[in-house]
Amino acid sequence: MNDKHSLGNFYEDLYPGLDINHATPRTVTEGDQSLYIALTASRFPLHCDAEFARLIGFQREVVNDLLVFHIIFGNSVPDISLNAIANLGYADVRFGVIVYPGDTLRSVTKVLARKESSKGNTGVVWVQTIGFNQHNDEVLRFTRWVLMAKKDINSKTEDSERIATPSQVDVENYFIPSELQVNNFSKEVTGGKWLWNDYKEGERIYHVEGVAIEEAEHQMAARLYQNTARAHFNAYALKDSLFGKRVIYGGHVISVARELSYNGLENALRIVACNSGTHSNPAFAGDTIFAFTDVIQSINLDSKEIGALRLRLIALKNLDPMKEEVDIKIEKDGKESYHPAVVLDFDYTILMPKH
Amino acid sequence: MNDKHSLGNFYEDLYPGLDINHATPRTVTEGDQSLYIALTASRFPLHCDAEFARLIGFQREVVNDLLVFHIIFGNSVPDISLNAIANLGYADVRFGVIVYPGDTLRSVTKVLARKESSKGNTGVVWVQTIGFNQHNDEVLRFTRWVLMAKKDINSKTEDSERIATPSQVDVENYFIPSELQVNNFSKEVTGGKWLWNDYKEGERIYHVEGVAIEEAEHQMAARLYQNTARAHFNAYALKDSLFGKRVIYGGHVISVARELSYNGLENALRIVACNSGTHSNPAFAGDTIFAFTDVIQSINLDSKEIGALRLRLIALKNLDPMKEEVDIKIEKDGKESYHPAVVLDFDYTILMPKH
Amino acid sequence: MNDKHSLGNFYEDLYPGLDINHATPRTVTEGDQSLYIALTASRFPLHCDAEFARLIGFQREVVNDLLVFHIIFGNSVPDISLNAIANLGYADVRFGVIVYPGDTLRSVTKVLARKESSKGNTGVVWVQTIGFNQHNDEVLRFTRWVLMAKKDINSKTEDSERIATPSQVDVENYFIPSELQVNNFSKEVTGGKWLWNDYKEGERIYHVEGVAIEEAEHQMAARLYQNTARAHFNAYALKDSLFGKRVIYGGHVISVARELSYNGLENALRIVACNSGTHSNPAFAGDTIFAFTDVIQSINLDSKEIGALRLRLIALKNLDPMKEEVDIKIEKDGKESYHPAVVLDFDYTILMPKH
Repeated sequence: MNDKHSLGNFYEDLYPGLDINHATPRTVTEGDQSLYIALTASRFPLHCDAEFARLIGFQREVVNDLLVFHIIFGNSVPDISLNAIANLGYADVRFGVIVYPGDTLRSVTKVLARKESSKGNTGVVWVQTIGFNQHNDEVLRFTRWVLMAKKDINSKTEDSERIATPSQVDVENYFIPSELQVNNFSKEVTGGKWLWNDYKEGERIYHVEGVAIEEAEHQMAARLYQNTARAHFNAYALKDSLFGKRVIYGGHVISVARELSYNGLENALRIVACNSGTHSNPAFAGDTIFAFTDVIQSINLDSKEIGALRLRLIALKNLDPMKEEVDIKIEKDGKESYHPAVVLDFDYTILMPKH
Repeated sequence: MNDKHSLGNFYEDLYPGLDINHATPRTVTEGDQSLYIALTASRFPLHCDAEFARLIGFQREVVNDLLVFHIIFGNSVPDISLNAIANLGYADVRFGVIVYPGDTLRSVTKVLARKESSKGNTGVVWVQTIGFNQHNDEVLRFTRWVLMAKKDINSKTEDSERIATPSQVDVENYFIPSELQVNNFSKEVTGGKWLWNDYKEGERIYHVEGVAIEEAEHQMAARLYQNTARAHFNAYALKDSLFGKRVIYGGHVISVARELSYNGLENALRIVACNSGTHSNPAFAGDTIFAFTDVIQSINLDSKEIGALRLRLIALKNLDPMKEEVDIKIEKDGKESYHPAVVLDFDYTILMPKH
Repeated sequence: MNDKHSLGNFYEDLYPGLDINHATPRTVTEGDQSLYIALTASRFPLHCDAEFARLIGFQREVVNDLLVFHIIFGNSVPDISLNAIANLGYADVRFGVIVYPGDTLRSVTKVLARKESSKGNTGVVWVQTIGFNQHNDEVLRFTRWVLMAKKDINSKTEDSERIATPSQVDVENYFIPSELQVNNFSKEVTGGKWLWNDYKEGERIYHVEGVAIEEAEHQMAARLYQNTARAHFNAYALKDSLFGKRVIYGGHVISVARELSYNGLENALRIVACNSGTHSNPAFAGDTIFAFTDVIQSINLDSKEIGALRLRLIALKNLDPMKEEVDIKIEKDGKESYHPAVVLDFDYTILMPKH
């Protein structure tokens, strides 16, 4: 049907060097902040306590880094991933200037590389998306790669040169907001006893609680982020899909797990980087999400007041890791694969005050 | 039970000439805007991008016209339609001055006419409702007619003179905001390729996506609009009703379908008029809503920069019109009636920039 | 598992005299107000009509008293009631200075008393929580008592002296906002015919409507209040609990019932006190909530313009008290207990203008 609607881009449309200005910029408001709290149980004071945010140098409460991520990601969906068969991964996710309620976010994407699958009927596209505020300050950038459907499975395209994605965001690329005044930081406000120096590489933190996600919740979340991917909404068509039902937007699982991690990581300030992330199994409405964190790396920044922690956040569905031991990966048919309860393996880096 | 509660007005209470000031005015806020996005997947930049709104002459992002409609409509429910057996139709819906977050909306209704049913146990009432902001500027007016229950089915009332409702809002009654500066309009922001001149009478646009609606979503929407009609909430009583369950507020179906129409009508600016609307079949929680638009009329306003399009928006449940052809109306028992999947037939007029 | 998470306080941790500053203060915003409306159907103009609020002396629309209660209560949960077996009661709930959108609320709790159960494996703790705004003005105080789990069921602690909780907040402790100008009050705005003088002790008001509550709704409500009690969220663990499922936060039932009470108590201004409250039976997702109010006491304040009404708000699930007569308490096995449909017995006091 050839009418005025858009069906989104296909593999053939996304050639290396292409620059796309995504439509529908988004003014982030107090309303979005409240919904984010209601949908994710967010409790980090930086995002819900204007007095605390001001105390440590900010203008007011700060928009949650992951909400910024979801809005920029959602903004890119109509052009990049409507015809995605799978979101394969992302890397080099760097957060930039602080976003406040009232700021307007827009984004652009550059196609970096592409490669047809061996059968030639699909292909992988690597893109970099950058988000800006209304002053054209960068708020976020990330690389992701997506398995795309072809418009014409018989079309032939040339593969580009491969690109390398870093396994970890370089420390030099951490953006530390200049307005941050860590010396005013208060553990009484966050309720957390532990600071950067207390966290040791290799230690694990179980985040205690489990939170169920309902259809209405993940739909409202994805709509709030203006993410129109049909896997989250089109219940009618999905009856005939692999899972037979709607799949929760993986980014919402990240948010729910990250907000659970408040219990044990109360003094985390902003996220500076996401190094990698795998949505190892789908999550569905009715699932209860649990989470634990492994401290991968303690990064001593050139600062007396603040350090960074590289964390591995594991989310599970319908399995409480405090009650039932679980291997993140298991051997299955001679191959290593994720435990079926593991829905997220997320590697990211946060800032935290030092003693 | 004769206590201090109100049971709402009945047919006998609503006599021609009666003026009602509806209670509980409503300040529309950023929070309402966010919830509207989360509940309807709204993406038109006029309503979510303060920078774009300012670029084309407005103070900031503009409250969605349909959100204004739902709030004014909801405001009238306790006095007009608590005892409605059916909302039969509406006409001559005209949008007025722009509503911004922070504005407070109130409404008044005048009873225009009434007519008893042939059996005399019910009757139809025609009313006109007008909404105002805190400066007493008109933001909306509409006529609707409702089949009402009688308090006493044996009471006798006199029918009034019949009134005519226009099949279409007169072009002279389109309110075009004086602050609108279309020359700054940007297709990059909306993502839409097509402008007023490109749309031809008779063409059809399929809006591609389908969106499921959950109980929690339509309840939250109707509550946000402070619409207390029991058909949307009282699950216990509705077990014994015709459908045996809650019915989604028809206005919410309009909103969901209209926001789907962004794909293909990206450059639509505000709605100037709703000419008529039929909720041809009920929609229930779990239904997936699809939509297409027929361009009925291209209206060449006295402006070099802007024109109007009269559109017929059809919403369907659990039927994807891109995959399965569907006649809007079918022959059934020798009578023409709506296809059982058609839940909305909505005739409205939008403004769109010209080339 | 001894890691950096917190498991909350147990009976042994809460000794009389202990003062706790609760973490994670909360800036209340317009977004919270909108969500509160969408989740509870709130319609009192004081909370949703900025013009009316200004007319009667306030700066703008006022944060709903119960939203303030839920936020302060939720704020205390991680320190006080994560290991609660049951919330046994509350008393002497007094509302203080008006809270506006933008205010930041924090809270402190003092442990007043404790007493081990006869078996010694659990115990009851009495605490008083006080909430403040960013100017350190008191916005709320309340006493509650909680049946707590022990960390070590064999531990021995000393019981404190018992404390008395008042059965009713003393009239001298009503906080009447000095900015309130009742002479500008408008019944047209509220839609209510009846003022303080019209309500008689002993009369009953049925609030007509019934409203269903969904899982997504009560979860969003409890998350909005940052109440992390697992009974509302952890569907997986609760499969093996007494009820086999999530229980709706009792405070949300109070809110839903109180907002139903608008129909018949439209001219209620703020809540000045909650005298006592019993969550007599649990409410679950899918339940439809009905409510009626008994006027317990008409309190003639020292004011020509305003009086107080002490009200008993009864909420029921899946039983419409206008259709089916119900005794609040019934005789069962020779003992008086609540009717199984009664989910709330709430004794509170509101202000209302006089004729």
